[in-house]
Formats: sequence, C-alpha cells, structure tokens
Amino acid sequence: MPRLYFEDFPPGWTISFGPRLVTREEIVAFAAEFDPQPFHLDEDAGRASILGGLAASGWHTCAIQMRMLFDAFIGNTDSHGSPGIEEVTWLQPLRPGEVVTLQGEVLEARPSRSRPGVGIVRFRFDLVGATGKPIMRQVATIMIGRHGGAEAA
Amino acid sequence: MPRLYFEDFPPGWTISFGPRLVTREEIVAFAAEFDPQPFHLDEDAGRASILGGLAASGWHTCAIQMRMLFDAFIGNTDSHGSPGIEEVTWLQPLRPGEVVTLQGEVLEARPSRSRPGVGIVRFRFDLVGATGKPIMRQVATIMIGRHGGAEAA
Repeated sequence: MPRLYFEDFPPGWTISFGPRLVTREEIVAFAAEFDPQPFHLDEDAGRASILGGLAASGWHTCAIQMRMLFDAFIGNTDSHGSPGIEEVTWLQPLRPGEVVTLQGEVLEARPSRSRPGVGIVRFRFDLVGATGKPIMRQVATIMIGRHGGAEAA
Repeated sequence: MPRLYFEDFPPGWTISFGPRLVTREEIVAFAAEFDPQPFHLDEDAGRASILGGLAASGWHTCAIQMRMLFDAFIGNTDSHGSPGIEEVTWLQPLRPGEVVTLQGEVLEARPSRSRPGVGIVRFRFDLVGATGKPIMRQVATIMIGRHGGAEAA
C-alpha cells in the first residue's frame, strides 16, 4: 500500500475499518489508571448508574478509536498530528464484549495557510457497535503532508 | 471533604489542581498502545516533525487530564458521566518532564430537562505547563446529581 498524502483525502473520501473486540479487562485497566469512576470499574456500580452497566471511559473509547485510525490509515499516512477536535459525542455506552467498527468520512480538505507542504483535513468519525449501535461521533482535524512536501506548496 | 452535588458547581466556580509530572516512560507506553505515530514514540522522529521533539499523544493528554479531574473533585462528586466534549484544542506539545497544572471553571449550570435529579454542568478546562505554557483547552459537559437526588427535582 503506497504512503498516503493530503491529495489522497478529498471531500467525500470514506473508510470503514474493524471489527475490533473490546474486552472487560482493557476497560477496567484503562479506567483504573485514568478514569476510576465506579461505573467504569465495577458491574454493580455500572448497573446502578445512568450507564445501566459497566461501560468504558469515554477517553478510553477515544484511545481505542485512535488506534483503529492508526491501523486503518494514519500509520501509512504522512500525518503531522492534530490541532484539535471540534466535537466528541458519546452516544451510547461502550460495553465489555462489544465489537466496534470505525466509519470515517472527509468533510473538508484545504492547504494550510501557515505551513507550506501541509494540508488540513476535517474528518467525521463514527464508532458503531456490532448491531449498528452508534457509540461515539467525532469531528477531528488532521494535518497531512502534501505530495512532494514543501516543494509542492 | 463532603460529597459534591450539582448545587456546588455554580457558574464562575473555579479550581486549580496539580502539579503533575509527565514522564517519558508514560508518554511512550500510552503511544505504543493507542497512538504509535513516530513523534509520540521517538525523540529523533519528534525533532523531525512539526512537534519539534517527542510529545505526548493528544489522547494521552486528555487521559492525564481526566485523572487529574478525578483526583481534584470528580472522585468526590456525584458524577453521572459526560455526554460529550464541545472542544479539544491541543495548543502546544506536552513534553517529557513537563509539570502540568489543571485550571477549571464552570461556564454554565442547569437542571437536566430529561433526567430529574441530575444537573448539566459545562466546564472549561485549561491544562498548563510549569511556565504557564498553554497545552490543552477543553469545553466539556458533566452530568452531576442534584443534592437530595430525584426527590429534589
């Protein structure tokens, strides 16, 4: 697979990636380190909460999606990182044993005004469960090198 | 310290928490699992990148901030989790050895329309380095139980 550059991500470009199993063990391990709220650690506490059962930390969901993005295309892309995220919406709980798929679409792509050789690509990412259950939506911006680098700008 | 409820977070409430040292070891460990882009794993690759040196994954920065929030007040608050984040802006790289402080402010607080007994609190969080360097800004919503629970609604 050839390395991907800004020009490879026009508006309307889509990707679907997965499936990826999410385990109870990793949910609890992430929560214990970064987000030890009871409903991320314990089934009974989860059932007693608005989440209705043990559920992954939303930040764990973001981290899992980041790894899926890396494996799907970012690891093979001239990525220069991200200045930020416009939206993170946690739509439904991510449960142990869920199998997630990532769907991505390019909303907008433009050359950077300040960095020759780099383009700015806005993506929408939807993380969905095995039955199509929507789990998380993000709108994120990634800086991606232009084909030929600075010379092309 | 008494347990905190929705009523304890009026608009204008502020908190400052830290400091917290961020180590190279944890930056590389998180990146290896969730965001193995070269500039999050290797000093030379970081120097060759826009980041100008090894820097934490933005999602690691979010996870570190979540743990700081937990230790600062969420662990002692009747939190019911978050429906989402309106903004995550990664302002400057988070480097190994950086010492971060968290500053939070309540922007808005209102009872939930759909969930009696719960209030919706919008926070702005700024993560800053030792010299006041801005590293990340977030605007996040947290659902917090009202004092007295559903009976109070």
